[in-house]
Formats: sequence, C-alpha cells, structure tokens
Amino acid sequence: MKQLKNIGERAAIRHIEKILKKTKNNRGIGDDCAAIDIGNDYLLVTTDMMSQQTHIPPQMTPFQMGWFLVAINLSDLAAKGGTPLGVVCSFGLPQTTSEQFLIKLTQGANACAVQYGTTIVGGDTKETTEITLCGTAFGTVKKNEFMPRNGSRPGDVLAVTGSLGKAGLGYHVLKKNHAEKKLSKGLLEPQPQLTEGHLLAKLHTVTSSMDLSDGLSASLYQLQELNTIGFEIEKNTLPLATGLNQHFKNSYGVDPYSLALHFGGDYELLVTIRPKQFPKTKKALENHGIKLTAIGVVTENKKIFLIDNGKKKLLPNKGYEHFRTHRF
Amino acid sequence: MKQLKNIGERAAIRHIEKILKKTKNNRGIGDDCAAIDIGNDYLLVTTDMMSQQTHIPPQMTPFQMGWFLVAINLSDLAAKGGTPLGVVCSFGLPQTTSEQFLIKLTQGANACAVQYGTTIVGGDTKETTEITLCGTAFGTVKKNEFMPRNGSRPGDVLAVTGSLGKAGLGYHVLKKNHAEKKLSKGLLEPQPQLTEGHLLAKLHTVTSSMDLSDGLSASLYQLQELNTIGFEIEKNTLPLATGLNQHFKNSYGVDPYSLALHFGGDYELLVTIRPKQFPKTKKALENHGIKLTAIGVVTENKKIFLIDNGKKKLLPNKGYEHFRTHRF
Repeated sequence: MKQLKNIGERAAIRHIEKILKKTKNNRGIGDDCAAIDIGNDYLLVTTDMMSQQTHIPPQMTPFQMGWFLVAINLSDLAAKGGTPLGVVCSFGLPQTTSEQFLIKLTQGANACAVQYGTTIVGGDTKETTEITLCGTAFGTVKKNEFMPRNGSRPGDVLAVTGSLGKAGLGYHVLKKNHAEKKLSKGLLEPQPQLTEGHLLAKLHTVTSSMDLSDGLSASLYQLQELNTIGFEIEKNTLPLATGLNQHFKNSYGVDPYSLALHFGGDYELLVTIRPKQFPKTKKALENHGIKLTAIGVVTENKKIFLIDNGKKKLLPNKGYEHFRTHRF
Repeated sequence: MKQLKNIGERAAIRHIEKILKKTKNNRGIGDDCAAIDIGNDYLLVTTDMMSQQTHIPPQMTPFQMGWFLVAINLSDLAAKGGTPLGVVCSFGLPQTTSEQFLIKLTQGANACAVQYGTTIVGGDTKETTEITLCGTAFGTVKKNEFMPRNGSRPGDVLAVTGSLGKAGLGYHVLKKNHAEKKLSKGLLEPQPQLTEGHLLAKLHTVTSSMDLSDGLSASLYQLQELNTIGFEIEKNTLPLATGLNQHFKNSYGVDPYSLALHFGGDYELLVTIRPKQFPKTKKALENHGIKLTAIGVVTENKKIFLIDNGKKKLLPNKGYEHFRTHRF
C-alpha cells in the first residue's frame, strides 16, 4: 500500500482537494488562504503547522519558534493583500516541557503578532511526544484588492519583494554551528511582508501573488500549473541576500543562486504584474523603502527556463516537499 | 525547574494569558471562542488540537479522527450561538501513513462539516512522528445573541442539553474491547450542538454558556471561578446517557454518575438561564425535539455542592487536565 513518503505532500493535497465539498463562497481554494465572501470583503483564513522534524532546527530558541509560527501564517495573509484580525495558536508540547519554554514560546508568538499590528486571540495547549505547533491567522481584504494565485498572463513581469536566499544562508550558517547569530535570523525569524502585500493590493496592478515559503522554483511550478503559462527567469537579476557572495561560496561550497532558487523559507512575495504597470508599481514600493525586483517574464510556452548569461536551461523543480524529504 | 506535567494545563493557560497582548475588540478571552468585533456580528474563532496520546484511542478509525477534529471545534461555536463559516484542518502525519488513511481522515472531517452545514475551506499537511491534528473553526454570531461564559447570576437555573456520560460509557466499552460499536460512538463521534446553540441564542434567555468538552465538574469549576458564584447540583436530575444503568454498573464496576459528572467528552451545552425564563426556554427546545434538563441552581455561596438524596456534599473537581493525566 502506498505511503505518504512515496506520494509526497502535493499528491496528498490533491487527494484532500478531491474529497472536500466545494463551496461557492470560497475564492481561495488552492491559494495561500481560504477567502470567504462576507459582503464587501473576503475573510481570509490560513493555517500552518510546524513540527520538530521538519521546521525546528535544534538551535531554534523557544522565542523563535513562537515568532516563526505566527510569521508564516501572517505571510499567507500578506500574499493576498490582507489585514490581520487575529491569530490563534495551538501548542502541542511534551509533558516534560519546562514552564520557561512555554513562556518564551508565547512571548515569541505574541511579539510577532504585535510587531505586525495584530494579537493572539486564542489557542489550545495539548500534550504531544514532540513539539508540534499549529497557527491559524485570519484577516480581511477588500474583494477588489484580493491578489489571487491565478491571474498571470503571458507578458507579465515576474517580480519578488526583498531578497532571496536568506533562509538558505541561515541554514548553512547554523549547520556549521557558526557563531554569527545575525545570519541565522533569515531562517529562524522570517518577516511577513504585510506592508508590501498591502501596498501592492491597493495599486491593483498585480495579476497573481503568492508567498515564497516553498522556494522560488517550487513556487514557479505551482503558478505555472495553476495559470497554464511558463516563465523565463534571468539568473543575474535575482536579488541575492546580503552575505550570499563569492566569500560565502568559497567558505561553504554552496552556490548562492541555488539557495535563492530552491531553498525556500524566505517568505518574500512572488508576484506577476502587467508590464505597463510595473514601473509605477516598483516606484510606489520604493517610496516606502521596499525593494521590488523584476526577475523574469510570464510566457505562453508552458516551460520554466533559467537564462544564465544568455544561455537558456530548463529550471529544475527542487523545492522542499513534506513527507518526501527531510531538512534537519 | 518546573515542567508542564507539574503545573497542568490550566496553569499553563494562565501563563499564556498573562503574556498575550489584550485587544479591546475581542470579547472572547477565556471563553470557548475568540469573539472579534466585525460590526453587527462577532467573528468567532476557535482552535483545538488532538494527539495520539490524549485523544486518539487505538480503536478510533481514521474517519472518526477526522470527524472528531471538526466536531470538537464546531462544538465551541455552538456554545456561543454561532453559525459556522468554515473550518481549516492541519494534519500532522508520520511519513509511513498510508494513502488510504489520509483519504478516510479527510472523508471524516468533510462528513462532519457537511453534516453541520459547513465546509473545510483549507488546511495544511505536515510530517510528524505521531498523528497530531489541529482544526480551527470560524463563524459568526449576532452581537446580541452571543452567549458568553461569564454572565451567570445567583438564582439562575443550571441546565444541560441532551444526556451525560455518553463518552465515558464509550470509553469503558472500548476498554473492555466490547463488540458494541454503537456504544463507543458517544466517545468517538461527538455531535456538536449547533442547532441547540442557535435556538438558545435566539431566545436571549441564556446568561452563560459553555460546551462540556472537559466534563461537568471541571466545567462547573471554570464557570464558578469566572462568575464568582457557586452551584448546587441535584444528582438525581442528571440526564444519564442510554446504557448507563444498573446493568452497566454491575458489568463494568463503574458508577454511571461519576461518568456523567467527571468524564468529559460529551460535547453537550452547559447553560445558566434566568429562572422565570427557564420554562419557556425548555419548551422552545422541546418543540424542536431537543432535551434541556435543569440539573441545579446558581448560588451566591461560591462552593459547588452535589445534593444526593437531600444530603449536600462538596463536588470534587476531577475533570481531565492535559499534561497531568493520561486517558489512553
């Protein structure tokens, strides 16, 4: 009999989607958030679970776990242009967990919520053998500002906020047990792009949007399938995170571009924008000190190419997939 | 250093509550659901996690696990008088979980949602060492129909919907590995009291309400603390579940009343109602075929007494508490 490790997370999700009764008032099926019609707005709801095996490296502090849980959920709201109303958190913890751990965990979750203008409004605590945390964020977005995953059209500019490879950099720094705590923050303390999502939504220039939790290549393959389009990515335009340089490459033996393309965990926004509207969109974000970088175009050809010094190669789909692969 | 097993779930929750930033627009702190002010309505949000150690007996089928996850979350909405808008589910599953298990689990969750007029609108799947499921239900209630936990006044009638001890009965049947599958349904397939909650909310006669997930005695002690009141319970009025009779007592060596009072897992509604309004409330529910039984009164004296054949004894607080006790 087939097991989840044979079929992987995305096949598992397809099974689930086939079974669930569809509802007409949910715009968000297969999207970062459910989007429930509540009049002028959509109510956005998203849930994410993290477990010791897959998301919690041994160096992650309890404060960072709490922060991470809230951040990855708010990131999904950000990708749809949403404003958070609140977050609920369930903490599955072993009996032997210290009181201090619980306090730090809660402080981290609270700090992230408050930093991004919202609060933890409820939750649950349960006993589990390994640390398993589940968060649900909810918020609203005006219907005409909702940025769906599907909507990319050939000719659109593909762009990302911020920089890529931060989480990958943090991972390698931690793996080497490097003292540079600051560098591991890109992995352990992601920042949800709520302001970015908000600004983009209000401009009405985005044709599709998702967050980069899974990494760029995996995310592009998801957009490709959903929109039946393709992409051409210009490798030298990728905005590498600070620290991902030749020195890093030499010391760690890891290609910075492979981290930017495949590692995931950067929680930036990946958007497509009508070409005529790209300059004004970029400028509007720059006025708020936010970087938006064009990294390629949407194509009619349903393949995804990486252009490296004028040479076109198929981009492999190497994103992280649960059940099949382990990261830590 | 203190561990969670020393302090128990309720002390853990008090730690969490002290840390979290309070928000004025949440009516539901310390209640079954968060209740966020969204205009004419409250948006109700509740989350519950279940893990193999504490909620999943070996005899529970994957379908029942999915059902249970959705039911216990809808039960919290029911207790506030809410109408569900949707549910999101996170499934933490081991790599070796079979495809068939995932399918049945999803079918169970979907069946419960659909049975109660709602849908699963999104979710997450993650890899964990043990089965850990987390659900979040959300819905709305008109502000003037919200039934809070705090509001009981001395003189109010204390009442419960349906019957008590179903889950305890199911537990003992399962423990004996009894073939009577039907009897274990009270434990494994709880029914959220959404219709009951709805009807009660529309009558505007309820002064406080909560669901009986934790068992009657633990729930009474929670209401007592929150409302600074007490209770007198008439033992012989407790509506015992079908099957909790002398024959059960003889075969299992377990007192039916102890199950009704302390076991938990019945997911009935526990409400207090102004004495003058109790008869019309009872009648209105009976007109819909719903049983509402008066089991005692709210007292000014802050103690909780059980009256057994005219003899008054303090009711012990023996509800199930996570981290401290194990059930399976």
